[in-house]
Amino acid sequence: MSAKPTDVTAADWTVAIPDPDLLSALGPLPAGMRAVPWDFDGEPDGARLEEIDAVVLPYPDTAGALPQLAKLKNLKLVQTQTTGVDGIAAAVGRDVAIASAAGVHAASTAELAVGLMLASLRGIDVAARDQPEERWRHERRLSLADRKVLLVGVGGIGREIARRLEPFEVQLTRVGTHARDDSEGHIHGTVELEQLAASHEVLVVITPLTDDTHGLIDAAVLAALPDGALVVNVARGAVVDTEALTAEVVSGRLNCALDVTDPEPLPPDHPLWRSANALITPHLGGDTTAFEPRIVRLLQQQLAAVAAGKAPRNLVQPGRFGNGST
Amino acid sequence: MSAKPTDVTAADWTVAIPDPDLLSALGPLPAGMRAVPWDFDGEPDGARLEEIDAVVLPYPDTAGALPQLAKLKNLKLVQTQTTGVDGIAAAVGRDVAIASAAGVHAASTAELAVGLMLASLRGIDVAARDQPEERWRHERRLSLADRKVLLVGVGGIGREIARRLEPFEVQLTRVGTHARDDSEGHIHGTVELEQLAASHEVLVVITPLTDDTHGLIDAAVLAALPDGALVVNVARGAVVDTEALTAEVVSGRLNCALDVTDPEPLPPDHPLWRSANALITPHLGGDTTAFEPRIVRLLQQQLAAVAAGKAPRNLVQPGRFGNGST
Repeated sequence: MSAKPTDVTAADWTVAIPDPDLLSALGPLPAGMRAVPWDFDGEPDGARLEEIDAVVLPYPDTAGALPQLAKLKNLKLVQTQTTGVDGIAAAVGRDVAIASAAGVHAASTAELAVGLMLASLRGIDVAARDQPEERWRHERRLSLADRKVLLVGVGGIGREIARRLEPFEVQLTRVGTHARDDSEGHIHGTVELEQLAASHEVLVVITPLTDDTHGLIDAAVLAALPDGALVVNVARGAVVDTEALTAEVVSGRLNCALDVTDPEPLPPDHPLWRSANALITPHLGGDTTAFEPRIVRLLQQQLAAVAAGKAPRNLVQPGRFGNGST
Repeated sequence: MSAKPTDVTAADWTVAIPDPDLLSALGPLPAGMRAVPWDFDGEPDGARLEEIDAVVLPYPDTAGALPQLAKLKNLKLVQTQTTGVDGIAAAVGRDVAIASAAGVHAASTAELAVGLMLASLRGIDVAARDQPEERWRHERRLSLADRKVLLVGVGGIGREIARRLEPFEVQLTRVGTHARDDSEGHIHGTVELEQLAASHEVLVVITPLTDDTHGLIDAAVLAALPDGALVVNVARGAVVDTEALTAEVVSGRLNCALDVTDPEPLPPDHPLWRSANALITPHLGGDTTAFEPRIVRLLQQQLAAVAAGKAPRNLVQPGRFGNGST
């Protein structure tokens, strides 16, 4: 086969897909485009490495795939199945476009955040632990209704959490990196976190882990929360100062519901394991049945876009799609 | 004090309130109306029994109060703090109006229903039980997103469950006593339950317990549910055939999340206590902080309505408000 033209037309692209099931789930590709299964080991079936124009990375672990990308001499687009894109730009350079799967995991993670809030506030976790001992303890509980909820993180998943909370009669305050307004109202900046914490009973963290957000929910923010407040983390463990949180939870002053921890899993004998007012789930966030249909839909949309000469969604690095040719 | 006129004007009514805290939470009453605390034992402070025009029943247990109502010779309105009104008409006769607190408990019960769905589907209950043993078990789970949910019960709480489910990307099918349409679409009749069950992965029950709904979710409906389906009950235990449900759950074919059971609590050694795919909560439904502000708001609205010569909301028996005089 001849080398591909390098202009933006992508109707004749060859796309490597890491999983034959995913490939067959995609159904018919746009006319002229072809997909080949490739497990990032050796040559793909039915295409040479230099014929590959676009590649979909495996899920969830991309560590083995990244070193193989340098072999794809005509690579123009890397599409992830994850929200994060760590290490990809370093592996492919600046000229290859990188698109994330932002949005694909939002439904699953956002519903878990609401589930953790309800489970902790309403004592579903306590009841689940009481059950094998046939213990029936009825007590008046905080409802989610009427709670003042501080949502730290207003990206894709944060938006989905906010959308799901809408019918629950809460008062929602949103916090992003910088103060600004959007169509839903005001977003506070993280500099206001400590002051805002004092008036909120539920703090939900869904911000990416970066140098700026490492330890963002620190001892001062936690100390500012009112007695009995609940900290929910569905982001990354290190966004919260685990030592400070542990002290507040073990003392009984705060409650927490954590799908992510630092380190993860928590080490044996960590005090949070046995704290009655801590709820720890094993990083259930994105890994549900919701993933499969959503990644298929995203990939179909992305391939249709590039076949039509348009930019794909979720471009983290624009590559050839960054020069207005879309 | 002279006897009150018997026409519909209620600006000068005397209202007995069962709890001094509730009385003070009501704030100023409509001009001319007065409230007195009365614990349904002896005479109220500041009023004779025959001066009482309206009474608010205690919460949650009304059994001790009902026999006292016959002593109120000028009683015109009974207002409950519960959704149910069992036994009141028998205690006061047909001429006294009875208004329920329908709506007051809806937020709390509806959010619990969503919390139970999320906890069971996403394995929050399993994680809570694993936690004291420091066990971290990650596995792919069903999301609530994409589930086909069958909601049995379209009264006040059913509506609030439906409203809360809206942003969760579920396919909701509603079932009421009789097939009909409303502003939200079609409501199926209970005669279709068995047929509908076959195509739904989550069955949520929030129908009042009546002769017609006793055992409504019977062995045939349960058998029709697909393997791995989840049964959530936030209604009354006896709406579900507990024996049939237990068999399906203990066999591992179905999952359940029950805030109500039959009997309640479950007896010692009942197999559901130790079923890993059962989640039992101790009738947490309506008993939360959401109750207090909502009952206060309802009572304020009801007293304002009658003071203005209008019918109160939630009339279960119209009494004097039934003749068009409102």
